Amino acid sequence: MRLADAWFVACASRELRAAPLARTIQGTPVVLFRAGGRVTAALDRCPHRNVPLSAGRVLPSGRLQCVYHGWEFDGDGRCRAIPGLDGAPGDHRARDAVTLAAREQDGFVWVGATPGVPPRGEPWRPPHLDDPRYGILRRTFTVRGTLHATAENALDVPHTAFLHAGLFRRPGRGRTIDVVVRRGADRVEAEYLGEPRPAGLAPRLLAPRGGVVTHVDRFLLPSIVQVEYRLGDGLHLVSSAALTPVDALTTRLFAVIALRTPLPRVLVRLLAAPVMQRIFRQDARILAAQTATIRAFGGERFAHSPVDVLGGQIWRLLQRAAAGGEPGRTGGGADDDRREIRLRLRL
Amino acid sequence: MRLADAWFVACASRELRAAPLARTIQGTPVVLFRAGGRVTAALDRCPHRNVPLSAGRVLPSGRLQCVYHGWEFDGDGRCRAIPGLDGAPGDHRARDAVTLAAREQDGFVWVGATPGVPPRGEPWRPPHLDDPRYGILRRTFTVRGTLHATAENALDVPHTAFLHAGLFRRPGRGRTIDVVVRRGADRVEAEYLGEPRPAGLAPRLLAPRGGVVTHVDRFLLPSIVQVEYRLGDGLHLVSSAALTPVDALTTRLFAVIALRTPLPRVLVRLLAAPVMQRIFRQDARILAAQTATIRAFGGERFAHSPVDVLGGQIWRLLQRAAAGGEPGRTGGGADDDRREIRLRLRL
Amino acid sequence: MRLADAWFVACASRELRAAPLARTIQGTPVVLFRAGGRVTAALDRCPHRNVPLSAGRVLPSGRLQCVYHGWEFDGDGRCRAIPGLDGAPGDHRARDAVTLAAREQDGFVWVGATPGVPPRGEPWRPPHLDDPRYGILRRTFTVRGTLHATAENALDVPHTAFLHAGLFRRPGRGRTIDVVVRRGADRVEAEYLGEPRPAGLAPRLLAPRGGVVTHVDRFLLPSIVQVEYRLGDGLHLVSSAALTPVDALTTRLFAVIALRTPLPRVLVRLLAAPVMQRIFRQDARILAAQTATIRAFGGERFAHSPVDVLGGQIWRLLQRAAAGGEPGRTGGGADDDRREIRLRLRL
Repeated sequence: MRLADAWFVACASRELRAAPLARTIQGTPVVLFRAGGRVTAALDRCPHRNVPLSAGRVLPSGRLQCVYHGWEFDGDGRCRAIPGLDGAPGDHRARDAVTLAAREQDGFVWVGATPGVPPRGEPWRPPHLDDPRYGILRRTFTVRGTLHATAENALDVPHTAFLHAGLFRRPGRGRTIDVVVRRGADRVEAEYLGEPRPAGLAPRLLAPRGGVVTHVDRFLLPSIVQVEYRLGDGLHLVSSAALTPVDALTTRLFAVIALRTPLPRVLVRLLAAPVMQRIFRQDARILAAQTATIRAFGGERFAHSPVDVLGGQIWRLLQRAAAGGEPGRTGGGADDDRREIRLRLRL
Repeated sequence: MRLADAWFVACASRELRAAPLARTIQGTPVVLFRAGGRVTAALDRCPHRNVPLSAGRVLPSGRLQCVYHGWEFDGDGRCRAIPGLDGAPGDHRARDAVTLAAREQDGFVWVGATPGVPPRGEPWRPPHLDDPRYGILRRTFTVRGTLHATAENALDVPHTAFLHAGLFRRPGRGRTIDVVVRRGADRVEAEYLGEPRPAGLAPRLLAPRGGVVTHVDRFLLPSIVQVEYRLGDGLHLVSSAALTPVDALTTRLFAVIALRTPLPRVLVRLLAAPVMQRIFRQDARILAAQTATIRAFGGERFAHSPVDVLGGQIWRLLQRAAAGGEPGRTGGGADDDRREIRLRLRL
Repeated sequence: MRLADAWFVACASRELRAAPLARTIQGTPVVLFRAGGRVTAALDRCPHRNVPLSAGRVLPSGRLQCVYHGWEFDGDGRCRAIPGLDGAPGDHRARDAVTLAAREQDGFVWVGATPGVPPRGEPWRPPHLDDPRYGILRRTFTVRGTLHATAENALDVPHTAFLHAGLFRRPGRGRTIDVVVRRGADRVEAEYLGEPRPAGLAPRLLAPRGGVVTHVDRFLLPSIVQVEYRLGDGLHLVSSAALTPVDALTTRLFAVIALRTPLPRVLVRLLAAPVMQRIFRQDARILAAQTATIRAFGGERFAHSPVDVLGGQIWRLLQRAAAGGEPGRTGGGADDDRREIRLRLRL
């Protein structure tokens, strides 16, 4: 599954410094470099002899110079110098680096999925970044899992009681909860109604006073996952991640957690970061095992149950996007894309 | 080559304890667990999200619980609980684990080759297990070799004078020996007539008083190899192994050596075990080199000589079994399957 | 790309001693052994059970004995003994080892590319080996690169100013130089006219007195690269290498440097060897990066400029040779194969 019309995070802004940086997106090696003020992204392959451009260096002129023969490329990928040539390089398209759309925004470097074709929309923006009431925590994780499996895992509720037992939810006697699933052309979200404050360590730490819970899980095309929790007036947590498909079986998560809580921010950071790290490790282990099993059996074969609230919807959205359909124009039409589903779970 | 109608040893009984156990048979990951008194074997893939079931645990109820979402499977593979579901799982075949026939017998756990289809016959039984006059030695070995190459190696006589020189036979001037090969519908055996007591360390240790040698090598479908030695009245050795094709190029040998000898049993064990280990290491090295060479050349290409007494016959039996023919009903008919061949070798 | 009618160096003479030696040429495992006075090359696969013959040993009789069953092969690959067989092996082609043409010459063991078919021509001979005025330095290098990429790299001038900056040429303001490219049926060469003594460490060390430079780069089918420098009367350097395609992406260079210089030979060796080693490491790193990038993108895609003097010509020659065309008989005919091209570079 390859998405052609999408922005993906290539790296955090602070990862891209003076030297060119190599990243892989959807299996394609990409080089990033700062040509003067702006970021350029190109296929990580010198058009001349196919040496990786990321092995070269950025000149004071802002041009990227290949390490092998010294060809120089400007911020538009144009070949501007060929050492040894008696004259200027001239206008030969085949000698230019192949660029991808690039955008630096909110501390991320976003890159378009298809060389030479900028995505139709804009990169997603993490919420509450500029709101001083929110503390912001950023983390990058890499997992061995498909984009779909990683997105489903990030938004899946029932596994938390098992895999993360003691951190999130308690296994055992559940309480009946209604879930409303709202489907849009480019998104799907699940709202959990009447959920009690979850048991376990993390919630108790973050919202010691309790209150009414609002809990919504969201997936936004092409690859944004978001879990939003509100607990009374005290706590508001929006844990988002932009997912980048590194290759068919590897996904990188650029997570941004926005948290409003009465607790001192430094305390939250001290307590939340290790919990987050532990949850991530447990999920990463499961995703790697799942990926290995799917490979061993030559493909995935999933059974479903009503408890799998978002997985099937994410799959449908990704398949539609991969098929190149314009969001909101394919499938059963606008009605189909806005309907609500009501489920009852015991959580 | 895949055998569909066969029992294979998945593990020794003592390897399968309270926790689920992962094994691979003919390239397929299998999970084994003890559901109450009996052993269950299933594809090692949760039907839900394809996480390996062997990563889960066996509950006090005897059910196997998946580590990811906590789905529970009973000893028949039936899905009996889906946490979070408001109600019972009901009767959905797609949610059940896919089971294989399993049988625990003679200290081994045997598993059928094809999910859902029990083999037509019964698992092979190692001889003399309950006879108090015999000492029993069990060992498990894994080699890098096809099922056929491993079986041929185990029953091949001429290589012992070279590869295991000094342990078994002496290279050099041989003595003329007649060999009778008897072919059956599901087996082939070679009897060596007039063989002297082999030179080398092992035979001298095991039968210090010498005598008349009886020596028969056998292959039994699907994958049993057996070497039987009798030396006078003193020594009777039946060295058998059930071979399990782990994948196309890996074979596991579950060896059972039954030995009747006037020597004290503890002495035999002390002397025989290291010799056996050394022979195994030499064979394993050769099989790995053979496998690597066959891969490098893109396939095997064997020349034959009359000294290769059983290799071709084993190949014919395995090919017939893989083609799904009912044993004894395919090929040249009953006559063809019972004929004797007489060879003369210098050993 | 596989060359069928070619001699390749399998190893240096001194590498092949009493034991059989395993080498890989164009992806095919080859065993070399000394049967009496001469060298035999064969596929490294025992015709019997496909164990590598190189795991065996050479008997005092000069025969190669397989380690598994002890089959013996003479210097023509003929099977001469089968232990256990009651009689002589007789005349069975399938039991013979498959030999390749072999020739030991100038300190190298050359092997023909196609089993059973000796190459039409003779192995290439390094120049000046027997001339006492020349010092000879031999080195063997292995790179991760195709035959074509490695040959182009070895003969490419412009990259030296970048990749080997300080050792060979100085980047920066170049001087205009004319280059004459002469194409022959089995070769191509480039002569650089009016080149100044190159800047950098190596030339200054080797020709301290300066003088008029003559510089020719040559490629000879199937895989010989040669750089020839003359500097006044004092210095004559012929740096050649026979390239052996180990597999599609690995090439071994058997380099022979012949050097006539007024400097004491021991001093040259002390100074030149480390420089050569450093140049090699830089080239090896680039070739490996190029190979990895070509693999990541699923194939190579090169742009060209007039500065790429020989790369395209080498490609054309190799393609023609791989297609099996008789040298000088294919393509545009004799005229086409002898024309001169005149270029102007700034070096």
